[in-house]
Order: sequence, then structure tokens, then C-alpha cells
Amino acid sequence: MDYPNDQAPGAPVRSGIPEHGRIPKYYAVKAEIAVLVDGLGEGSLIPTERDLSERYDVARETVRQALRELVLEGKLRRQGRGTVVAGPKLEQPLSLASYTEGVRRQGRTPGRRLVGLDRFPCPDALAAETGLTRGEPVWHLERVLLADDERVGLESTYVAVAIAPRLDSDFEPDSSFYAYLHDQGIVFGDADERIETVLATPREALLIGTPPALPMLLIHRVSRDTRGRPLERVRSLYRGDRFSFTAHLKE
Amino acid sequence: MDYPNDQAPGAPVRSGIPEHGRIPKYYAVKAEIAVLVDGLGEGSLIPTERDLSERYDVARETVRQALRELVLEGKLRRQGRGTVVAGPKLEQPLSLASYTEGVRRQGRTPGRRLVGLDRFPCPDALAAETGLTRGEPVWHLERVLLADDERVGLESTYVAVAIAPRLDSDFEPDSSFYAYLHDQGIVFGDADERIETVLATPREALLIGTPPALPMLLIHRVSRDTRGRPLERVRSLYRGDRFSFTAHLKE
Repeated sequence: MDYPNDQAPGAPVRSGIPEHGRIPKYYAVKAEIAVLVDGLGEGSLIPTERDLSERYDVARETVRQALRELVLEGKLRRQGRGTVVAGPKLEQPLSLASYTEGVRRQGRTPGRRLVGLDRFPCPDALAAETGLTRGEPVWHLERVLLADDERVGLESTYVAVAIAPRLDSDFEPDSSFYAYLHDQGIVFGDADERIETVLATPREALLIGTPPALPMLLIHRVSRDTRGRPLERVRSLYRGDRFSFTAHLKE
Repeated sequence: MDYPNDQAPGAPVRSGIPEHGRIPKYYAVKAEIAVLVDGLGEGSLIPTERDLSERYDVARETVRQALRELVLEGKLRRQGRGTVVAGPKLEQPLSLASYTEGVRRQGRTPGRRLVGLDRFPCPDALAAETGLTRGEPVWHLERVLLADDERVGLESTYVAVAIAPRLDSDFEPDSSFYAYLHDQGIVFGDADERIETVLATPREALLIGTPPALPMLLIHRVSRDTRGRPLERVRSLYRGDRFSFTAHLKE
């Protein structure tokens, strides 16, 4: 029985080190630093690159690669000129509930910052995905998502002007869009979602304030009202180092 | 109205190019190659790095970075010494159904390849996550997941020996574990899932045959039978360039 008893079932098997073949040097250092990080609390400053390269007797570039991966994975984060231990990922439920509710449930304060609100005729691709009529006026609402004032995502909502004709005048763009629809008597019936991982584009990285090419979680949503009529098409991009999504499955 | 009418709602807004600030050169080349790729069919060979660097008048390293991102995102894949247009990502439903069923539904042939089957006393972390008793014998079944003979993921299943006492003798490791449990009269009741993005470890990259540090989708599952008793704890790792997950949400 070669099974290590301290293996967490959610962690990579055997700490991810191959049975055969060479362990990449940066990865051995990464595993060492990960153990170091586990012993420190959230927000603790970790030793400098120079200190780590001396401690493990490796080149600065080797330490840098290890730290880069730990940052991409959300175990560490940059803070000013240093690197600190990051908190656990936020767990957002995959449900018809809004971003706002999900973040509140975890004791964080949700927020949004308007990037833009455009009005344009529904293009072919959007019509095909939603069942809207090609050429009918639609809104595109784009907002940065915040949790406790930290930028964590970017959301594009496409909705027919017929559903929300006064969106440009009586909607407060840093408030919940779902609460706004609810106040108009619009009730969600069902939605199809698709989740994938993508790399942040330079524009997205700039808006969210992440390193470019950070792995992100992208959720596509097409939702309908209780009578099955198209409501919205949403493209929600979340920092892969800060978010995970949960689902409860039943027969 | 500055909204480009050919914008697909699932694509990054304005092709991901910042309104202000410099467009990174590699990203401009990546956007050009993405357009080129859209005009070619699945499996088509794209021009060589040398050809592309001449066509766009940039350094080979710039082309290489653009291609690397397109490969990580699953738009291109390496084939022998060349690079070809990849097929669309597989869409796997988030449901109690097995990997086997999900892949079959898309007209692909599912397969699995045994990495190992171990038996060991349930460690603290597994007991805490599942409700199993610390120290009771559990199996750890680790398999590479295949679709049409292509390696696409890696799955670790933890299950009590009491549930499947003869797993080591009467289970065919390249068959469906859920079908096996079903044949024993074991019925799934519900499950909690959590999905996140992680980087492949060197061991995982070796087993799945991916480049190291490829962004992966990791699904954690804890499932119970119809009476709420713990059934299994699964850690499923899927290539981020080959998979997306779908869910249907209702009130």
C-alpha cells in the first residue's frame, strides 16, 4: 500500500509528482512553497524571491515560475511589491439566483462598475442563440463584478429593449439587474448554462486588473421567463484564481 | 452606436482589444490567426510558424506565443510536427449520469485506462468530506478518461470497501463504474459538485499527455445513495481545451 495517508482527496494524487521520469525543478520548488504557504495564514507575506532561491538553492527564474503558477491558481496573490497568501476561492452556486445573492451568501459585499450600455439591432448570432428576432433593438450592458471592492469578473448582458425599455434612464448600473427585472414583474423560468475555461484577453485583463492570459471561468447563460420567452443572454467571466462554482444534483 | 454587428455574444467584447492603451503584438497576431482558423475546417493544417511570421511581419517568438494561447484554448492542436484546427469542445452535462453516458450522447466512444487501484484506511480528510468512518477500508480507483481513444481526463474515485467489496476482482477497470454499482443494486440519490480551474501537475500532464500547466477543469463530487449514505468522492480532471460543462437551471 503506497497510498500516503495525508493525501487530501481534492488534491492531485501523490502531490502531482510523476512515478517515473524527472520532476521538473520548478515544480519541486512549487511543492515546497505550497507546504510553506499552508502553514501561514491568509494575508501573510511570504519570503522574497531572493530568500526562496537561497533557501532551495535554485535560480531566481525557477522560483519565479513556481510563484507564477501559485498566483495563477489563487494560492498566492501579489500585493504591492510583495506576495501574500490568498484566501480560499469564493463558491458561487450555479442557480437562477443572481451574482448579488451568491456573493452575499458568503458574507461578502457584491458590487458592479459600469463599463458601458449600448443599444443596437439584434445580430444574427444573438438571434440564433436566444430566439430573439433579428434586427429588434437590444441592450448590451457590460459591467465589472466586484466582491468587497476587489474586481473579480466581467459580465455582458444582452436583453431585448422590449423587456426593459427604460434601462438607460431608470436603472442604477451598480445595482442588481435581476432585482430591477423583478421590480418590473419579470420572473425567471429556466436557463441553460455552459461553463468553460478560457484565457483573459488583454482588454479583459485590463478591465478586471488581472495578469493577461490568467485562466478564467466563463459562464454562458441563456434564460427564459416562466412562459418560455427569451429573457437574456449573459456572458460572465470570473477570475479562475478567485472563484469556483457549486451545484447540487438530484435524480 | 459602436457595437460591431458581427460580434458573437459568446466571444470577448470587441475581440478583446482594449479601447485605450497598447494592443500587445502577440495578441494582434493571435486575433489574425483566429480569423484564419475560422475559415478552415476541423483538422486543417495551418501555415508554419515561419510562414506566419513572414505573413504578419513579426518575430517567430511572437507567432509562437499566439499559437501557444490558441492551443491552450483548444482552437488549435498540435499534430505530429504541425498544428491543425481543433474540433469544438465536448459538452458534458453536470448531472448524476456517468462520464460514459455524457460522452456517448455526443456520438463519441468513451473509454478508460486503469492507472491504479489501491486499498487503504480512510484518512481524516476523506472522512470529513464524505461522512465515512476514519480508518474504515476504502478503495482509490484512478483512471485516465478517453474519448475516441484520445486521453481527455483523469479520474480519482474513493469508495468504501463495504460498498464494493470485490472491486479488485470482479470489476473490469475499462468499463463504467456507475454501471457496475447499478448492477450491484446501488442507486445514486444526490451529489454535491464543485467546479474550478487548475493547472495540470507534471504527473497529470504525463498521464493525460497534455502540455504541463494546461488549464484544466476540476470537478469535485461527493455523492450519496437514496437514503443519504455516503457513496463516493470523485476528483475528475478534464482538459480545459477539450471540455465544457452544461447545466439546465429551473426555479
